[in-house]
Amino acid sequence: MSPSDPVVQRRLGELGRRVRQARMDAGFSQEELAERAGLHRTYVGSVERGERNISIKNLWALTDALGVQLASIVDPRSDGGTG
Amino acid sequence: MSPSDPVVQRRLGELGRRVRQARMDAGFSQEELAERAGLHRTYVGSVERGERNISIKNLWALTDALGVQLASIVDPRSDGGTG
Repeated sequence: MSPSDPVVQRRLGELGRRVRQARMDAGFSQEELAERAGLHRTYVGSVERGERNISIKNLWALTDALGVQLASIVDPRSDGGTG
Repeated sequence: MSPSDPVVQRRLGELGRRVRQARMDAGFSQEELAERAGLHRTYVGSVERGERNISIKNLWALTDALGVQLASIVDPRSDGGTG
């Protein structure tokens, strides 16, 4: 897949929206999440906007900080299908 | 998390073993999986050995080629808890 693959773009956008929703559910600002995950606030913002081909290590950092399963972020079908 | 974080190393190792298991379940060689996923065979090998901080895009390429949910690869608890 090329970086501009529309399927990848759509998936990154969905992933970012689920990160954002999980962050808001946890009651964190982008800055708070970034600090807890050891990432930069602007990086978290770009992930939420679907602009980053994020690595598994940074995904784990985010989901650990949010207290959620990575599966619920990468695949909404695994957490009840409401996504 | 630093790249040498032992928790990250363990998780990458588990992820790699699940990729390898899914590949064998699908009946593919590393070379076949690499070709279907648009990746290099040596890259697939290094992912299976837990040596790569793989990106979400390459994870999707692998799971699409394997016909499995990404959730089942990143979090074994989401597919029945046998992992």
